[in-house]
Amino acid sequence: MINSMKERRTIRRYTDQDISPKMLNNLLEVSFRASTMGGMQLYSVIVTRDALKKEELSPAHFNQPMVKTAPVVLTFCADFRRFSQWCEQREATPGYDNYLSFMNAATDTLLVAQNFCTLAEDEGLGICYLGTTIYNSDKIIETLNLPELVFPITTITVGYPADIPALTDRLPFEALIHEETYHDATPEDIDSIFRLKESLDENKKFIADNNKKTLAQVFTDVRYTKGANEAMSENLLESLKKQGFLK
Amino acid sequence: MINSMKERRTIRRYTDQDISPKMLNNLLEVSFRASTMGGMQLYSVIVTRDALKKEELSPAHFNQPMVKTAPVVLTFCADFRRFSQWCEQREATPGYDNYLSFMNAATDTLLVAQNFCTLAEDEGLGICYLGTTIYNSDKIIETLNLPELVFPITTITVGYPADIPALTDRLPFEALIHEETYHDATPEDIDSIFRLKESLDENKKFIADNNKKTLAQVFTDVRYTKGANEAMSENLLESLKKQGFLK
Repeated sequence: MINSMKERRTIRRYTDQDISPKMLNNLLEVSFRASTMGGMQLYSVIVTRDALKKEELSPAHFNQPMVKTAPVVLTFCADFRRFSQWCEQREATPGYDNYLSFMNAATDTLLVAQNFCTLAEDEGLGICYLGTTIYNSDKIIETLNLPELVFPITTITVGYPADIPALTDRLPFEALIHEETYHDATPEDIDSIFRLKESLDENKKFIADNNKKTLAQVFTDVRYTKGANEAMSENLLESLKKQGFLK
Repeated sequence: MINSMKERRTIRRYTDQDISPKMLNNLLEVSFRASTMGGMQLYSVIVTRDALKKEELSPAHFNQPMVKTAPVVLTFCADFRRFSQWCEQREATPGYDNYLSFMNAATDTLLVAQNFCTLAEDEGLGICYLGTTIYNSDKIIETLNLPELVFPITTITVGYPADIPALTDRLPFEALIHEETYHDATPEDIDSIFRLKESLDENKKFIADNNKKTLAQVFTDVRYTKGANEAMSENLLESLKKQGFLK
């Protein structure tokens, strides 16, 4: 298992082979063994197989092709609704329409999503996370009919890999680990931490293609800009409010 | 692997056996293969082994004994600082002091945390998640010296299991899965979804011990109350602001 995780790649191209409901459900059911806050299981998974639904979801994910080409799209949602309904039916007053409860549910949700990915990859499937889920949560909420106290946290496309891309780079291990307390990186540390990433041909091409001077500028000026981040932050907080998580 | 995940339990009692730094680092390094937003790896892990540091962390985790009895305590933090420092050193202006960026980093962090747990359990170790991390983030930030754009998301205590507790219950699979769109539970569904949980002897004892009428009341009136949730929500948002994630 440790070896399969070492060798894992994000898979964005899938064969035509479908995933049987039996296999999918089995993997999901096992993923639900993840640790969960107070045993509450604060999540729901929306399974999209229908071509029309994929079409509807696609713009929310900036038309990334995986949404339409993967046999299965899974939207993992934080869900305090089911638990709150139960409270109301049992003479108890739920108090989960607040930000802390959202974060508790989002955490539960992400642990399950990652468990699912590990299991799916171990079975020979390939997955891709779509970070766009929280960028355009309002559209996803509408398309999937998500009621109050349900919020989309992440989306995974899944299918059989059509090819095996190269292993992607990672930062040096030491950069990510802090013994006892946080140790701020010095300017020299930063140079050394990002040296490998900056040396890769694909990243040099990235700089040239975007007419930038440094790789960091590709991130700040093209891929993840301050303006877009701020607009999407506002949108996300607005959605959280609308779904009842910021009372 | 699927079988080890099926049989997993949260472990709260550990033997005296230490975890070698080599083994721990190996598991962490492999966990860093998790999917990450744009390859940015927006996390840091703080490793606590020092008894005094555990003592300092303990109140933030409501003195749950695992913090002091586990050989290793890991605090998984969202970290946009390292990446922002790099941008600043490379003539790029980082725009990651906002809520969307926090959520992106928190997501990266939780995928790594869950990978670590899966790997650790596969190696015979036992883990426990401490949800208290975001309840008392301000204290943890202080104890671990977390600078701006670094935020504690979850904590895991880890060690060799001193005993193997019973497998905990899970809600029926069908309750958590929605085909194509969200299907709201009917009152009859809710009764059926929570029937098993309500039937367990340990939960009946829970009701009696707390002098309550229903199990749901134990959650709403004792374990996760509206008042505490709201106070902690305010505290969490205040901390996010202080760490620079709500500009």
